[in-house]
Amino acid sequence: MPRSRTRHHGLAGVGLIGTSFMGRAHSVAWAGAPKFFDLPAPALACVAGIDAAETHEFGRRWGWMRSTADWRDLLRDPSVDLVDVAVPNHLHAPMSIAALTAGKHVACEKPLAGTLADAHRMRDAARAAARKGVRTFVWFNYRRAPAVALMHRMVRQGRIGRIYHVRANYLQDWGGPSTPMLWRFDASAAGSGAHGDLNAHIVDMARFVTGEEVVEVSGAVARTFIGRRAVTPVRRGARPRTARSTVDDSLAFIAQMSGGAVATFEASRVATGHKNRNTLEVNGERGSMRFDFERMNELEWWDETQVQALRGWTRIMCTEPVHPYAHAYWPPAHLIGYEHGFVSQAADMVRALSGLEPEVPLPDFEDAFATQCVLEAALRSARTRRPVLVRSVVRG
Amino acid sequence: MPRSRTRHHGLAGVGLIGTSFMGRAHSVAWAGAPKFFDLPAPALACVAGIDAAETHEFGRRWGWMRSTADWRDLLRDPSVDLVDVAVPNHLHAPMSIAALTAGKHVACEKPLAGTLADAHRMRDAARAAARKGVRTFVWFNYRRAPAVALMHRMVRQGRIGRIYHVRANYLQDWGGPSTPMLWRFDASAAGSGAHGDLNAHIVDMARFVTGEEVVEVSGAVARTFIGRRAVTPVRRGARPRTARSTVDDSLAFIAQMSGGAVATFEASRVATGHKNRNTLEVNGERGSMRFDFERMNELEWWDETQVQALRGWTRIMCTEPVHPYAHAYWPPAHLIGYEHGFVSQAADMVRALSGLEPEVPLPDFEDAFATQCVLEAALRSARTRRPVLVRSVVRG
Amino acid sequence: MPRSRTRHHGLAGVGLIGTSFMGRAHSVAWAGAPKFFDLPAPALACVAGIDAAETHEFGRRWGWMRSTADWRDLLRDPSVDLVDVAVPNHLHAPMSIAALTAGKHVACEKPLAGTLADAHRMRDAARAAARKGVRTFVWFNYRRAPAVALMHRMVRQGRIGRIYHVRANYLQDWGGPSTPMLWRFDASAAGSGAHGDLNAHIVDMARFVTGEEVVEVSGAVARTFIGRRAVTPVRRGARPRTARSTVDDSLAFIAQMSGGAVATFEASRVATGHKNRNTLEVNGERGSMRFDFERMNELEWWDETQVQALRGWTRIMCTEPVHPYAHAYWPPAHLIGYEHGFVSQAADMVRALSGLEPEVPLPDFEDAFATQCVLEAALRSARTRRPVLVRSVVRG
Amino acid sequence: MPRSRTRHHGLAGVGLIGTSFMGRAHSVAWAGAPKFFDLPAPALACVAGIDAAETHEFGRRWGWMRSTADWRDLLRDPSVDLVDVAVPNHLHAPMSIAALTAGKHVACEKPLAGTLADAHRMRDAARAAARKGVRTFVWFNYRRAPAVALMHRMVRQGRIGRIYHVRANYLQDWGGPSTPMLWRFDASAAGSGAHGDLNAHIVDMARFVTGEEVVEVSGAVARTFIGRRAVTPVRRGARPRTARSTVDDSLAFIAQMSGGAVATFEASRVATGHKNRNTLEVNGERGSMRFDFERMNELEWWDETQVQALRGWTRIMCTEPVHPYAHAYWPPAHLIGYEHGFVSQAADMVRALSGLEPEVPLPDFEDAFATQCVLEAALRSARTRRPVLVRSVVRG
Repeated sequence: MPRSRTRHHGLAGVGLIGTSFMGRAHSVAWAGAPKFFDLPAPALACVAGIDAAETHEFGRRWGWMRSTADWRDLLRDPSVDLVDVAVPNHLHAPMSIAALTAGKHVACEKPLAGTLADAHRMRDAARAAARKGVRTFVWFNYRRAPAVALMHRMVRQGRIGRIYHVRANYLQDWGGPSTPMLWRFDASAAGSGAHGDLNAHIVDMARFVTGEEVVEVSGAVARTFIGRRAVTPVRRGARPRTARSTVDDSLAFIAQMSGGAVATFEASRVATGHKNRNTLEVNGERGSMRFDFERMNELEWWDETQVQALRGWTRIMCTEPVHPYAHAYWPPAHLIGYEHGFVSQAADMVRALSGLEPEVPLPDFEDAFATQCVLEAALRSARTRRPVLVRSVVRG
Repeated sequence: MPRSRTRHHGLAGVGLIGTSFMGRAHSVAWAGAPKFFDLPAPALACVAGIDAAETHEFGRRWGWMRSTADWRDLLRDPSVDLVDVAVPNHLHAPMSIAALTAGKHVACEKPLAGTLADAHRMRDAARAAARKGVRTFVWFNYRRAPAVALMHRMVRQGRIGRIYHVRANYLQDWGGPSTPMLWRFDASAAGSGAHGDLNAHIVDMARFVTGEEVVEVSGAVARTFIGRRAVTPVRRGARPRTARSTVDDSLAFIAQMSGGAVATFEASRVATGHKNRNTLEVNGERGSMRFDFERMNELEWWDETQVQALRGWTRIMCTEPVHPYAHAYWPPAHLIGYEHGFVSQAADMVRALSGLEPEVPLPDFEDAFATQCVLEAALRSARTRRPVLVRSVVRG
Repeated sequence: MPRSRTRHHGLAGVGLIGTSFMGRAHSVAWAGAPKFFDLPAPALACVAGIDAAETHEFGRRWGWMRSTADWRDLLRDPSVDLVDVAVPNHLHAPMSIAALTAGKHVACEKPLAGTLADAHRMRDAARAAARKGVRTFVWFNYRRAPAVALMHRMVRQGRIGRIYHVRANYLQDWGGPSTPMLWRFDASAAGSGAHGDLNAHIVDMARFVTGEEVVEVSGAVARTFIGRRAVTPVRRGARPRTARSTVDDSLAFIAQMSGGAVATFEASRVATGHKNRNTLEVNGERGSMRFDFERMNELEWWDETQVQALRGWTRIMCTEPVHPYAHAYWPPAHLIGYEHGFVSQAADMVRALSGLEPEVPLPDFEDAFATQCVLEAALRSARTRRPVLVRSVVRG
Repeated sequence: MPRSRTRHHGLAGVGLIGTSFMGRAHSVAWAGAPKFFDLPAPALACVAGIDAAETHEFGRRWGWMRSTADWRDLLRDPSVDLVDVAVPNHLHAPMSIAALTAGKHVACEKPLAGTLADAHRMRDAARAAARKGVRTFVWFNYRRAPAVALMHRMVRQGRIGRIYHVRANYLQDWGGPSTPMLWRFDASAAGSGAHGDLNAHIVDMARFVTGEEVVEVSGAVARTFIGRRAVTPVRRGARPRTARSTVDDSLAFIAQMSGGAVATFEASRVATGHKNRNTLEVNGERGSMRFDFERMNELEWWDETQVQALRGWTRIMCTEPVHPYAHAYWPPAHLIGYEHGFVSQAADMVRALSGLEPEVPLPDFEDAFATQCVLEAALRSARTRRPVLVRSVVRG
């Protein structure tokens, strides 16, 4: 990648596209970052949505100075330095590329795209933009759970040593038979189902934490357990109309890492009892670590170098000032929550655009493209029932 | 108590006194409440601190429109409807009473006061103000951890039945021998140590959850393990100057509840390994419940009415839309943190001042006075080594 | 105590009195000890019960060579070196004293006795017997849960340092309103209820682990929640006959330890959801430890000397060969169960009678008497509502 | 399979082959079964080992009446009804087949065999023997952990419904680089490594609990992380001699179940921090369950039919008399351990041979052969990097 020539003017103003779940999370992030962190506050310049009235109301509530029903307004707005793309996956490419072309930095929701072709175009656009000092970011928010950032640090400190195993599951259960048809079940909007939504996170986390790349994917099994879903609203008395779900409800695969570790990945939306069970475990020669987002303030660590009688799994409450990001929030064990990963990422993006180092590396489009290739390899493995080398995807 | 004659004008503006830990938490609360909850947004009108420049900077960062180094300015400010008192305990009484006298609603940090005498005066002032429609609130934030609010609901639904035991510990460990002298170790500013700071919370929570009152306290043991603490800054080369700590590092006592339950309470700042271990357990004839703030999104529930083969402790992740307050935040198991208890309380205070019901009862000065009497009974029991009836404190 | 003059002939044969729950546990212990441990096998010479046929059947099933309906037979039996007393509390004194007088070693179930007077006589008899080389033991089985034995070791290794807090609960829930009248609810047979049954264990464990003595008890509250219980069998159609329960269902108290720590103890048989929740926690200047019998293979340890970023509660699975007793059983994490504490104690008694050191100290009548005095102090505190010095009990 | 014509003479005497880890576990099982369960006691007739003196000593210690250094003695011994085969995997076939041929019932350690060819011959021998009323059993001991037996029951009660996911890991960590060469690392004796040793258990458990068969295996990755191991004893001063490990240290694969569920299996001996982490999770439409042997007395259950506000993971302590096998042991939450699975299996085998039903189904050679085919399919998938249908193995 060509070296960035950014002159680090900082971040004066943000324009957000999207007023749904992620729109709210990002709004909280941009507003909170300069409170919790000692940083200049970017203006929440403008929010773009579909419906003008709803977008106006969203903007008023969540602190945006202006609103628009035309996202292209943001590209023309000189008070907007960065466009934040928080919309369904198939819109990531056109919006991000347009923004980059307009010279705006872009912070895009994950996964990078719904398709590899889109992801490819985004990466190329990012490379071109980088030559002009324009930056890209992807909201892989879980990197900034303090426990996950600590895992990243601990691997680099040599506390795990040679890695034998990676075990990563992202399990949810909201996709049971009673859940109606949504854009997330439509391949043309979402690309894939649990896979793109959830495996994207844990592939990113595994790469981020271990510092290794996925080199091969095998044995992938994708399953659509619920083939048809009700189309709402259901008219009274009428037999419910249904539509075919065109995405996976779950996708599991086995991977080989560049350092020799064997990894298992599994994403599901029908793993009953798991609401947001984003887990990552790493077993190495010198120690092990495991993370469960449902207890996101905690990291479990096994120190194989401890004397045997005292060895055990240590639950580290990652809320001490010495822990990543924890200094910014509350006293020890005064827990932080889901939104704080976004707040910390916003803070790190502000830092990056001011020429400062983020506390842990920020994913850009290049980095997210590598994750996308792993996701694509898994899809191909599921289709062909053969092992797939990730480099064959990158080059293919 | 005379019935309130509030005409429910809502809450137009807030004035905050205090720019420290609680000042930050309350700032987040007032700013966040109208975002997460569908409520009119009160203005963050003015913040008052000690140093003008620092207070100005605090106000800028945390979203206050104006700042002042004279808290009495708030009393004269027509844009301020409610004064939020977030300062050391000995200042609760003078500031709250002045604000009430000026016709402002008051939201005071817990404990109500450092001394019973102060608490008495505050309750009397609140009674007088109530006659004019002026409201009081106390920031017992843990009532609004969704799990604690759910405990409250479940007792009222009859899921616990006759209560046999209450077990409440609030354990921290920041008060070890290396911690220097602070206002919190000075009885003249703090009233008491771990007791007023931590037992205040769990006595309030026990009363709130069970709906029972503490009638007798016995066996209280207060202990100052660290008798002298370094006065900072320590001059280089000089032998560190120390000062005497005049408060308890821990205080434990046994209580009898109005419904017959036996309760144990323990607060400590030297319980090594516990950072913010605020726990409450209730055992009853039909079931049990337990809460640990270090896993604040979870409630453990035992249903004695379940068939025996399937009975067990059920860990309820209190993040479903049906759980108290959870509807306002993120999807299931996208955890909330410490600050959200404050956000929810701010929202409920806005509701209350608009004539709406809070999701669970809000503590006022009258209610907090009852808690204060229990704390006082424990102090007397620790001093006299005798059982103390709480009603003897109230009347005495 | 006069120094023992035992000539360590080893243990050739055991005579057991009792064929109920403890009779079974002790039978497993005596049979298992020489299997798991590399020790000479004592003969299971004779078991004594009430009903001849039932005792015979018990003996056949549990591996005893002979049986008798007259426990005094054991005193005359030259093949019996040690009499094992596993009967209700009020029989501990007469049987143990008779056995000691007959020159037999005695292993008595806990608590030492139902009353202080009995305990006194037993201690005196043990002292007299000791002069003739006759030994006494008390089955405080939980000392030999590997995790508890490890706590004992770790305190001695200085890993906890100055102790601030001890927190011990022994909670069960089988004593609800539907449980009929049993000898355990009759003060004349049991002495006390949850207190003697359960607090006996945790007072012993707290003394054993900390190496400190309880010097004062205060605030004790004893409660009989279920005043009357059905007398079984209930005749059909008849209104159930009830009898008055004369023992406590729960008893909680606060204690001060000889090293300055503050301790809380609580025993209950109506703590719904807790089946055998025998917990002990110790907080000290250099670290903390906690144990929960319901996860008896695990010890949780906090190392305050670890660097802050890596500090946490470490769950040590106490099944490594380096852990106390674990070498005798199965490979790591192939868990042991309740009975193994008895097996390990039997092994240590065989060792002691062979002149070898037990892995951790064995409680004798002298030691159990000290525990009994703490229990008595708690009963007096509950009665008088005053603090009670333990030394006033010992001497009084 | 031809219907058994056993005339159910009961079990008069057992002959054991093997004096190592499993020899001890089975000895405890045969001795304990008639104590804990109300069953006729089989004689521990004879134990066979390699070294006469050591076998004699083993027999004395663990309660066997006679011993021999020639295992064929058992086949000729009329007091032996059942031969218990507790030796390395490659000896399972010759010994079992010889015993069956001699008309003895056989209880063989798992896995059925080290190779599919051996397993095939054993199954055929078992079929032939069955026609004469001779029975076979395989020691898949974990089926009789009460929690696992309860999972089996709950699936049959319809509490899980349609199964979406099975997740099974068996993780140990004793196989790190410092572990020397053992028979378990030699393919000629062990067949495979972690796979045959550990995946055997979890494949059996998954089949047993779900009642579904594995129909396809894909993506298997086998890994020998530690290629060479020291041959002991190491001579002082000499450079340690090493030998090549010819088995897998870990093997992971993905499976499809006959009912449509997607399953993941993983076995490892280098999963640092996991000593005996045998876990099984099942997610279904009506609920989920998960088991971790390191907390073997507990089962976690999610009831999707509970009202939403009270739904959660329920930790069932499987020690109530209503739970499988728990009635035989101690009171509630007086935990049982690893060995009790063997005791319960011995009891069930005695029952079966007396014409009674076991509490849950006992695996015979036919059943274990089905598990062996899944293991073989995984090995083939690892070798060919292709999906393998299990029926192709059975028939192939």
